[in-house]
Amino acid sequence: MTRSVGIYIFDNVEVLDFAGPYEVFTCAARVAGALAPATPPPFAVRTIGAGHAPVRARAGLVLHPEASFADAGRIDLLIVPGGVVGAELARPDVIRWIAATAAAAELTASVCTGALLLAEAGLLDGLPATTHWEDLDALRAGWPQVDVQGGQRWIDTGRVITSAGISAGIDMSLHLVARLGGQALAERSARQMDYDWRQ
Amino acid sequence: MTRSVGIYIFDNVEVLDFAGPYEVFTCAARVAGALAPATPPPFAVRTIGAGHAPVRARAGLVLHPEASFADAGRIDLLIVPGGVVGAELARPDVIRWIAATAAAAELTASVCTGALLLAEAGLLDGLPATTHWEDLDALRAGWPQVDVQGGQRWIDTGRVITSAGISAGIDMSLHLVARLGGQALAERSARQMDYDWRQ
Repeated sequence: MTRSVGIYIFDNVEVLDFAGPYEVFTCAARVAGALAPATPPPFAVRTIGAGHAPVRARAGLVLHPEASFADAGRIDLLIVPGGVVGAELARPDVIRWIAATAAAAELTASVCTGALLLAEAGLLDGLPATTHWEDLDALRAGWPQVDVQGGQRWIDTGRVITSAGISAGIDMSLHLVARLGGQALAERSARQMDYDWRQ
Repeated sequence: MTRSVGIYIFDNVEVLDFAGPYEVFTCAARVAGALAPATPPPFAVRTIGAGHAPVRARAGLVLHPEASFADAGRIDLLIVPGGVVGAELARPDVIRWIAATAAAAELTASVCTGALLLAEAGLLDGLPATTHWEDLDALRAGWPQVDVQGGQRWIDTGRVITSAGISAGIDMSLHLVARLGGQALAERSARQMDYDWRQ
């Protein structure tokens, strides 16, 4: 079974927030293919935009979404990166899409301030969650129903996972590869990325 | 003084190879701006394509180059990521551009198999260099005039720097931030990225 990984991208998304998970899941698919060529890849990764218009990530990088809200189809793993999320928090279409997609997905995971978008979509109510160390207070202040915790690389509550700042999305994604595809696949993927996985 | 950082992107470039340095140098510019708001940012980062056509990174991510060979202007730091580089090695226009841009730049640095492109451009002749652990033999076999070394995160020879696989580009870029902007700026940038810098 191939799980569809959808990474939401938007103007001012932080580059490593989306690129870290993108690298981990595509790398895991490649590594799995080398280990067992006859089986379907465990993950198929796409960026999802609200529409099909180009997205300008933080500091200028220009991306073309591979799919949009209207045509994304099935998403098993929804990844919500962070960055400058103020404009996204104010878009009801985005918050509704995150809530509806998460309701149908196997897992939803945030990187960095992506946690604020999950909170706004009501996905973190009553759950422990984390975000970038600089934004823990903002998450606490804005969504007091969330049990905000610092000092953790990621927090896995089952169907909803949040991670700390920027690079923590790499570690959290490797954790999801381990959870869904096995520890050996995650360790081989980290080795392929020449990465010291913080478990 | 603001240094112009140009990151070459091409079809099948590895996502984290370009995104790691992109994140580090843009994050360092932001952190420096917070520390000293009145001074110009230390780095301005752009992706450079051979032309202006969209580039399909490895596994499908679609990027729009922010500049092209024809209009890139001054590049102080040339970053050459890796990925699947066979097609790039066979393009005389690309190899000529790398050689000419490196000749005018302050520094040229590769990530992963980007080292093979530097080697083909003649930039590594007689120098120690590294690449992804899986490609050390290919670099040795193809360019015997290069002193290929494994087991190092990056190798800084002065004007030319090479780094190991994929994620090593993050550590190498932080090293360049330290070298050009000071150790404190590099450490604060790593902290902003929530990253354990492998020095």
